[in-house]
Amino acid sequence: MEQDKTYLIVGLGLLGGKYAQVLSQKGYRVTGITHSQSTLDFALERGYIRAGKTENFEDLVRGADRIIFGLYPTVLLDWVKENAHLIRPGTLVTDVSGVKRGVVEPVQAALPEGAEFIASHPMAGRETSGITHSAEVDFATANFIITPTEKNTPEGIEWCRSLAQTLGFARITELSPAEHDHMIGYVSQLCHAIAVCLMCASDNSDLAKYTGDSFRDLTRIARINDKMWAELFLWNKDNLISEIDMFSDSLAEMRQKLVEDDREGLEEMFRLSTERRKAFDKK
Amino acid sequence: MEQDKTYLIVGLGLLGGKYAQVLSQKGYRVTGITHSQSTLDFALERGYIRAGKTENFEDLVRGADRIIFGLYPTVLLDWVKENAHLIRPGTLVTDVSGVKRGVVEPVQAALPEGAEFIASHPMAGRETSGITHSAEVDFATANFIITPTEKNTPEGIEWCRSLAQTLGFARITELSPAEHDHMIGYVSQLCHAIAVCLMCASDNSDLAKYTGDSFRDLTRIARINDKMWAELFLWNKDNLISEIDMFSDSLAEMRQKLVEDDREGLEEMFRLSTERRKAFDKK
Repeated sequence: MEQDKTYLIVGLGLLGGKYAQVLSQKGYRVTGITHSQSTLDFALERGYIRAGKTENFEDLVRGADRIIFGLYPTVLLDWVKENAHLIRPGTLVTDVSGVKRGVVEPVQAALPEGAEFIASHPMAGRETSGITHSAEVDFATANFIITPTEKNTPEGIEWCRSLAQTLGFARITELSPAEHDHMIGYVSQLCHAIAVCLMCASDNSDLAKYTGDSFRDLTRIARINDKMWAELFLWNKDNLISEIDMFSDSLAEMRQKLVEDDREGLEEMFRLSTERRKAFDKK
Repeated sequence: MEQDKTYLIVGLGLLGGKYAQVLSQKGYRVTGITHSQSTLDFALERGYIRAGKTENFEDLVRGADRIIFGLYPTVLLDWVKENAHLIRPGTLVTDVSGVKRGVVEPVQAALPEGAEFIASHPMAGRETSGITHSAEVDFATANFIITPTEKNTPEGIEWCRSLAQTLGFARITELSPAEHDHMIGYVSQLCHAIAVCLMCASDNSDLAKYTGDSFRDLTRIARINDKMWAELFLWNKDNLISEIDMFSDSLAEMRQKLVEDDREGLEEMFRLSTERRKAFDKK
């Protein structure tokens, strides 16, 4: 990826902060915008960015050749509405959002002629948030999904791919925004919904001392960033509701087999789940 | 625990095999009964037992001072019905069953006068089964639950506790059979039900390449021993159905909040789950 460009990260949270850290380490010229003074101080002190601002940041936007949005979807849309006119033609732009429909088209439409937004999703979230945890993020084992539209150029997509490689992602794929949101509704959002509901269902903290790995693994992701996940769930609610319904049907089927003492039916479900789960052990 | 006794393990599966392995390693005299010739051969070759049989095992039962049942509940009840009369007075007996109501009282009633059954549950299951995987089982981090009834003596309970210590369990607790089954319905069975239903809900193996840690952690236990888990679920169906219902209500509540775009309501659930999950991080 080109060393002579200026990379502006807008939003220095867990992922934006990690992008800044890695790119600076690799010798790129990185600037940053954040609403939080303490985040800015942290980023400057650690050398994640060489310059940054919390307001009056027009010069940073105008001086950027590449822009990465590390913002929640709603904040991203607001930011673009207010500031997109500052982005220079020729600028390549991407994001880190966990949902794509509802984000990609409005952002592409808001950008000035000649600036290109290639959406992407680094699937490297954690239970923590904020730049102070960025150093713990590991890109090497995570998926990086590029979600191009017909507005994107081969060069723009290629840049996004080389960004992912530079950041250290081993697995880089392309999906349409709709395919991405369907996939994420299943592999990530449904799992988070289940973990959260398991904790909300009853207050069994007195049973904590009896829990083993199964329970801990299942509910690890029940520690969740409330603001971000409410955003992600609502932006993808059609997919998530449909996944919840499929899952609920399956659980209702199992419940019925229990009521009917249907041993063979239960064993069949166990064999099916065992068989299907094998596919997820291979990478 | 007394070195001069003979320990008979009936059922040399994953846990029975592990008991045999550890006790033999520590110098105890261990014998075994299994229906499978290949299991018997394995146990003898590895020195897990010093003698064993697949049939005509009356002498082994009569020669045992301590008996451990490593059998599924239904098999255990059948075995006791047929063979309990062979057990000598003075013999102390325990098991490894994952459900306790429905097992403890019938087994205690079936034993001859003077023999004592102290039920217990080593919570050290894995996704694998069979004696060839016994060596992988780790007792050091697992819970050992003793579920005494009014028929048990302090000496019997104390023996069961010393057995658990000898086997290497760090956390040994006592619960009533009813408390145990309630606890296990939540911390283990509900989790397995959820993982299985997530896999059964839809065939999404084409999405396997996009899954991250969340999904893998959540569904690890979806690889499940069909015969054993159908047993465990059905023996505890009242508790499990009630846990499924509480969980389903919570999931339905989340679904409703999605339908209604209730961002604040979702955030509330996320904060509650985050708060509750913290209790499960402490040991």
